[in-house]
Amino acid sequence: MAKQEVKVSWKDKMAFEAEVDGHKIMLDAAETVGGENRGPRPKPLMLTALAGCTGMDVISILKKMRVEVEDFNVTVEGDLTDEHPKQYYKMNVIYTFKGKDLPLEKLKKAVSLSEERYCGVSALYRKAIEITSEIKIIE
Amino acid sequence: MAKQEVKVSWKDKMAFEAEVDGHKIMLDAAETVGGENRGPRPKPLMLTALAGCTGMDVISILKKMRVEVEDFNVTVEGDLTDEHPKQYYKMNVIYTFKGKDLPLEKLKKAVSLSEERYCGVSALYRKAIEITSEIKIIE
Repeated sequence: MAKQEVKVSWKDKMAFEAEVDGHKIMLDAAETVGGENRGPRPKPLMLTALAGCTGMDVISILKKMRVEVEDFNVTVEGDLTDEHPKQYYKMNVIYTFKGKDLPLEKLKKAVSLSEERYCGVSALYRKAIEITSEIKIIE
Repeated sequence: MAKQEVKVSWKDKMAFEAEVDGHKIMLDAAETVGGENRGPRPKPLMLTALAGCTGMDVISILKKMRVEVEDFNVTVEGDLTDEHPKQYYKMNVIYTFKGKDLPLEKLKKAVSLSEERYCGVSALYRKAIEITSEIKIIE
């Protein structure tokens, strides 16, 4: 059983410095709520965690499948409730692959392996909210 | 109904560059799994989101209560399952306040307001897993 830990230290106003795996990330609120936008808001880091987790899964599965892509990105959209505490109630993951003659079935397989077997971020989110996904290919 | 969006773009090997609220964060895997540790792993960003969210809540509530702290940090510990997909099944949030004669009841109130009313990150996580918290005071 592994334990992971993250610490955020208050700097001033709404700014906090996070230390994550030895790397520092500044977090801050928008100017409209007393911050200075010196870094991202905390909540979208939930989307970042999902995008990065499944992105790393997919690129490493494709490498094992010997599928070469020219370019690859993952966008995660999150829909927020109007009521407090404002929270994501739905996320959509868009996988965009660029390359010539990419094998759609293998791309689908890599995505579903991440969704079902490897990505521990989406595994937790799925217990709470709906997550959908789509694949886009750019030649 | 608001929508938020984060995009991560593959750089090379296991590295992805995330764009979050206009700020760039490099994400990378550890060397042991083919990365180069150029940035944090995605999963601990889930802990970072929670720490930052509740930290910002608490510091702004304390400001409204006219409670002044010398220093403040939030540590979030996450326990991971052994089985795949490895995911957090429990988190513990440690609020550490530094200051002279800090009013414990107000600190507790600020923390519980964040937990129950404001923090949209913990609101989602609580639907899936157990979250505990503790308060530490350093004189």
